[in-house]
Amino acid sequence: MKFCSECGGSISQIVPEGDDRLRHVCQQCGFIHYQNPKVVAGCIPEWEGQILLCRRAIEPRHGYWTLPAGYMENGETTTTCAARETLEEACAQVEIGPLFSFFSIPHISQIYLIYRGKLLKEEYAPGYESLEVGLFDAKDIPWDELAFPAISKTLELYWQDRADHRTRVYSGDILRRDGKPGDPRFRISAQDISNAD
Amino acid sequence: MKFCSECGGSISQIVPEGDDRLRHVCQQCGFIHYQNPKVVAGCIPEWEGQILLCRRAIEPRHGYWTLPAGYMENGETTTTCAARETLEEACAQVEIGPLFSFFSIPHISQIYLIYRGKLLKEEYAPGYESLEVGLFDAKDIPWDELAFPAISKTLELYWQDRADHRTRVYSGDILRRDGKPGDPRFRISAQDISNAD
Repeated sequence: MKFCSECGGSISQIVPEGDDRLRHVCQQCGFIHYQNPKVVAGCIPEWEGQILLCRRAIEPRHGYWTLPAGYMENGETTTTCAARETLEEACAQVEIGPLFSFFSIPHISQIYLIYRGKLLKEEYAPGYESLEVGLFDAKDIPWDELAFPAISKTLELYWQDRADHRTRVYSGDILRRDGKPGDPRFRISAQDISNAD
Repeated sequence: MKFCSECGGSISQIVPEGDDRLRHVCQQCGFIHYQNPKVVAGCIPEWEGQILLCRRAIEPRHGYWTLPAGYMENGETTTTCAARETLEEACAQVEIGPLFSFFSIPHISQIYLIYRGKLLKEEYAPGYESLEVGLFDAKDIPWDELAFPAISKTLELYWQDRADHRTRVYSGDILRRDGKPGDPRFRISAQDISNAD
């Protein structure tokens, strides 16, 4: 950020009075430009025991497989976002179910929210951000060609729960692996869930 | 947004090729300035059956009561944010527990995340964003002087669960009450939770 979006003045990084962090502040009009984490929402679309994955046609991780997911837009809800991304990336209509995984990824300032989802019919096709789209069993998942750690971890936990016949929600943090030796990359806690009356 | 933060050029609102929404686009360098929802994280700090509330010293809703909560900063996790906000607004140290309520508020492009929390000791005081801070029983909560719908609804659900001796997580949407007649303002689903092994 070099110029103020309000007045066009030049930006300095300073700690404003009463604050304790460097902010982008306009030297001309004084406007403080806060920057905040972004939310990525998506789902695990299920169809007769299989799940739908998309192979990315865009960077980052062009050519790698992922769940349909993307940045929330202003004015939408997390579930609206998850359904919209599935329609855009896989041309598939889903009913969004309960939250499955919820991760903070602080080193890239993102929050990931992945819901359970049900395909409404067996119709899907690559959207303009996908090279191909397909249904997979656990044994067919391209584990070594998944796009992001949040997706790999979500799918691993999901298939484990399927095998164990349980319904859980997972929350936690995904950390860069450059901390102290022995630091876990994934700090995740699990809670068993059941629909309330 | 009037000027490009990258080059200082002037901004137009247009729908970029391959997109379907109006974006702020620089007429000079072509940079697309996406805008995304913000995340607010906070907690319900508990101490011997009571909970800690703060009376706001800042706008919006100056003078009204709220749970300690605020915008996530880049580089932090949702739980780090909830604990930091409690320290800043109530000078209180908390241990953050499981997620309690998780709301999308699309008309103001926010996500609210409120965790259960435990005060580590009975020490608290107004931070610079608070006029006063105090511990409350259910019967003493200033229900008519709460700052935001997300806070009122969270506290209502929380005390109901306490009375019913159950542990739930609530998720859903808080909508502006200007939709079709009969539209609910709160669309919330509840799940019973228990810690997994």
